[in-house]
Parts: sequence; structure tokens; C-alpha cells
Amino acid sequence: MPEHLYIAVVGGGKASAAEREQAQAIGRGIAEAGAALVCGGLGGVMEAACEGARSAGGLTIGILPGTERSDANRFVDVALPSGLGEARNALVVRAADAVIAVSGEFGTLSEIALALATGVPVVGLGTWELSRGGEQVDAIVRVDTPDAAVTLAIELAVEKRRSDS
Amino acid sequence: MPEHLYIAVVGGGKASAAEREQAQAIGRGIAEAGAALVCGGLGGVMEAACEGARSAGGLTIGILPGTERSDANRFVDVALPSGLGEARNALVVRAADAVIAVSGEFGTLSEIALALATGVPVVGLGTWELSRGGEQVDAIVRVDTPDAAVTLAIELAVEKRRSDS
Amino acid sequence: MPEHLYIAVVGGGKASAAEREQAQAIGRGIAEAGAALVCGGLGGVMEAACEGARSAGGLTIGILPGTERSDANRFVDVALPSGLGEARNALVVRAADAVIAVSGEFGTLSEIALALATGVPVVGLGTWELSRGGEQVDAIVRVDTPDAAVTLAIELAVEKRRSDS
Amino acid sequence: MPEHLYIAVVGGGKASAAEREQAQAIGRGIAEAGAALVCGGLGGVMEAACEGARSAGGLTIGILPGTERSDANRFVDVALPSGLGEARNALVVRAADAVIAVSGEFGTLSEIALALATGVPVVGLGTWELSRGGEQVDAIVRVDTPDAAVTLAIELAVEKRRSDS
Repeated sequence: MPEHLYIAVVGGGKASAAEREQAQAIGRGIAEAGAALVCGGLGGVMEAACEGARSAGGLTIGILPGTERSDANRFVDVALPSGLGEARNALVVRAADAVIAVSGEFGTLSEIALALATGVPVVGLGTWELSRGGEQVDAIVRVDTPDAAVTLAIELAVEKRRSDS
Repeated sequence: MPEHLYIAVVGGGKASAAEREQAQAIGRGIAEAGAALVCGGLGGVMEAACEGARSAGGLTIGILPGTERSDANRFVDVALPSGLGEARNALVVRAADAVIAVSGEFGTLSEIALALATGVPVVGLGTWELSRGGEQVDAIVRVDTPDAAVTLAIELAVEKRRSDS
Repeated sequence: MPEHLYIAVVGGGKASAAEREQAQAIGRGIAEAGAALVCGGLGGVMEAACEGARSAGGLTIGILPGTERSDANRFVDVALPSGLGEARNALVVRAADAVIAVSGEFGTLSEIALALATGVPVVGLGTWELSRGGEQVDAIVRVDTPDAAVTLAIELAVEKRRSDS
Repeated sequence: MPEHLYIAVVGGGKASAAEREQAQAIGRGIAEAGAALVCGGLGGVMEAACEGARSAGGLTIGILPGTERSDANRFVDVALPSGLGEARNALVVRAADAVIAVSGEFGTLSEIALALATGVPVVGLGTWELSRGGEQVDAIVRVDTPDAAVTLAIELAVEKRRSDS
């Protein structure tokens, strides 16, 4: 059984310069922590995170929605075309010991929700806020910096591994 | 090609008496409108919605997470074990021309998000509220009664069918 | 829990006149036996089987590979776009208490194999023959007529239901 | 986009000593050719192939049927729990530029069939033989040695990459 951790980075396929910078720093941090980076394999936040991880010698895995491997961004090491469309979001989450969400649209929200529904911890940087009946639901662990996101995600992933085994 | 509409009802596998009553009324309304009801096939809101649809002679379809058909609630006419776990949430949404969300937990949130990510309209009754950067995101069409939920969902489903074709 | 049986009919998306006739007779037989017909929802053998079932007042379910409901043949009552591509073959098989294979190409072979791998009985009419190391593997129950196919599939489905419960 | 090739090795979760030896040699050959090895991540042929690839410094990817990463054999570098059950067979095939089948049971047959149905070349070593109407169907490229299997699979994968692009 592989010993290293898998951290998923989820976020928009299009991203602002600021979001890209955050995602890059997060990817770099994940690699420096010795964890593998899992993502949806496309552009924006996913690409920037892969670029960051690659720059620190990390392993990057992209689980693609379509059937073409060439859809993967150029910083993906292991590119897996799933052909499942948006249902691949469930695979990204299942592959992860913890998830870091950076901003993002509805696809990202679905990954956050699938993670929370299946007990995978979610750390959020400028991403969705959830409430119900006017009451905030604090299921996403919110942070303000890429460094804090990585530190927390690794901690939560280690804890999850321990409690799963 | 089948002419009738498919309306998904999503919500918690456990439900309060009030939520069950709402779901039943919604199921009944869907059947009375001549639409088929799609859901995750289990208990709580799903079961109550199926019960309501069945009472009005409607067709109920349950797409189950597991591999056992016997997991379906007793008001499901067409019970399909998917064996996909939470990834079946994507199938419930794909099978629908519109989604009605009643309360619900993170699984329900994932269905709302997958619908919004793929252009399926979502009507919400006492369900999740979304915001980003402190700003409310009004992607769910919110209603206060089961009747309004059904009327709106049918309208939005008809509109979607028209714009898709 | 639904009491009726689900019989899948699998076969080529293109079919000869003779194959269509066989599939129609099988569909009719399934409906007359009070079982629901599950298939991949497209043309050829799938369409002919649905036409046959419909002519006898049966229920027809099509689990489509794409995301468009309009891909379903016109004899499908419940059309479910899965968006999973060929991975939907696993869903057709999971939805079935028994499978009848009529001729067919590699997609059909995959459905036969997935059924055999998961304990769903397969009846074959002019379909694939399997062997290994030069020895025939008699896992498909072979028949010569549509009537025999239906009779056997129903029997095997009843037996499976009994042993599963 | 990743430049290296992905070769899937499919075969039984239980394997004889002779099959394990073949699978190991194939895994080693894939790694020596600079390709990544994809498989279902479990025991038998999958494990032996991963062991072989690992011994030559290759990358091994296991796409697991269940939700537990710990189900992966100890020679898997990238272990992805899919939670899709047998439907994950479609993912193994989609992730591959070519497939090598070593002996195997019905699950292996489903992977062979899914590959052939979607245009992924299949090389077979002592695996299933297919026929229809008493006529052999020569869709699997048959070889007698692990070396021949690897050489051919790499050739066919290169050709597929060229024709896809």
C-alpha cells in the first residue's frame, strides 16, 4: 500500500492571476510535504496547482472528465481520461485524503459537497460559504493563506488515515 | 423519444415529519403534472416523494447507490442499483429536466451543485443557501410551498427541453 | 421494493432483419411474462426489443451512454442519459436480474462479461462463443429461439432473486 | 500533456506461479520501455505486473474497484480508489494506450471487450479466445511470450497515439 498522502486541489477551470498564484503556492506546498497532488487535470486552478507541485518535484495526477488524454494540462504527470463527465468529480474526491478548495464555481462546489458527504476533510481558501435556514454551516475549514491551507490539509489527511485504519 | 418530463426530487435520507409532508406533496404534484419522478431511491425525502407520486398514479424511478435492488423504498416503480456509491448523484441529476431540493445534507448539496454545473435548473424548498466572498449566489430558485416548487420546476423543465432541442 | 423482474436485452446497435425479428419476439415475451425490459436505449437489437415489449404493454428502460435523452429509441418509456460512455454497460447489467444477448459486437461482449463477472445469468441467442486454452467455456446458456431465451431468462432471474434474498 | 505511454495489464486477481512470472516479465518490460503501467490495483496478475515494473524503476497506477486505498497491492505507486465496482474496468481501459491481457476470468474478458469496443488495441497471452457463429474472431493480437507482448503493445500504442492526434 502506498505510504504517501494524496491531497486534491479543486477550483475553477478558469482562474484570476491571484487565484493562480495561490494555487501554485498550494501545489508547491503539497509537493514539499511529500504528498501527491490529485486534481481534475484541466486549466485554471488545477493547472496552476500542478505547476507549483511540479516545480518542487512533486507527483501530479489529473482525473479528466473526457476521453482524451491530451485534455490534461502540461504539468500533469499521470493523466487519466475517465470519460465520466462531471461524475469524475466523485473520483477526484475519492482519490484524496483531504481536499483544498480554491475559489471555484459549481463544479468545485460539487467536489466540496461530495467530500463532506463521504468524510473527506475540506480546507477552503476564498471558496463557497454554506448556510441553511439562515445559519452558517462550518463544514469547510477556512484559511487565509496557501501555507495554512497545506498545513491543515496535511494534518487532517494524516488524522483521517489514522482513523480509517 | 419519451415525451414526458423527468423531475428529480433530492433531499435527506432521513427527514422530519414536516419535510416528509412537503416531499409527499411535491411527489403528488409531479405526478399530477404528468411528469416522472426521479430520485436516489432511498428513504426520507426520497421515499415521501415517491409515496406522493404513487398516490397520484405517477411513475417513480430510483437510482440507487448500492448494488442491491432491495435497498429501494417501497414506492419506487423502477429501481436501478448503480453500484457507483455517491457518484450516482451525477446520474440522478443527468436523468432530470429539473431538480427540486427539499432541505437535505451534503449529498443533496452535491446534487444541487452537479445540476447547476451542468445547466439543470434547481428549485429549492428550505434547502442550502450559497454564497461566495460574503455575497449570496442566487442560483437556486427558492420557493415557500410544495405547489410553487412543482409549478416552477415544470416551467423550468419545459424551458430547458425547448432550449436543448 | 419492486416485485417485478428486470430482464436486460443486449445486442448490436445495428441489426439485421433476422436479428430485429428475434429481438422483437424477445421483448414481447419479456413483457408478456410481466417483467421490465432494460437495455442501452439505442437502435438495432435494443430498439427492436423495446418495440416488442411495448407492443405487449410492457415497461421499457433505456440507460443511454450519452447525456442526451433524445438519443433513446422511440420505444423507450424510461430514458436515462448516463453520460458515462461505455461504462454505462456496467449499469445495464447491474439493473438486470438476467441478461439475454442477441448476436452483438464488442460492446455486447463487455455486457456479457460484466454480467458473468458479477453473477448475473446470461442467455445467448446467436451471440459470442467463449473459450480459453482451446477449451470452450460454457458460461452463456445458449438457446435457439426467442421463446426459449425468455423462458430461461425468467427462470434464471427468479432463481437469482431467491438466492440473493 | 504527458509524453509517456500507458500500458494496461489485465488478468486474474488470483494467478498461478506461471502466470505471475509472465506478468512480472511484462511489467518489467513496460517499465524498461519507459511506459507507465495501469491496472486494477489488486492481486494476482495485477500485483505481479506491478512488482515487475517497480523492479525496473517504472511507474505503476492502480484503479481500484472499492473505496479503500489500502486494497492496493504493495507495488502500486498511484493507488486510486474508484468506488465504482466492476464499472472501474472501463476506467482501466480508458487510461490505456494499449492493453495486455494475461489469462484471466470474466472481469478480464470485460476489459478486453471494453478495449475492443472503444478502439484500444489488445495483446493477449494465454487469454480468452473469441468466436461467433463458429468463426474465430481475431481481434486480440495473440503472442507467446511476455517480450512479444510488450513489444507489440508498445508498437500498437504508438500507432494509436499517432492516429488519435
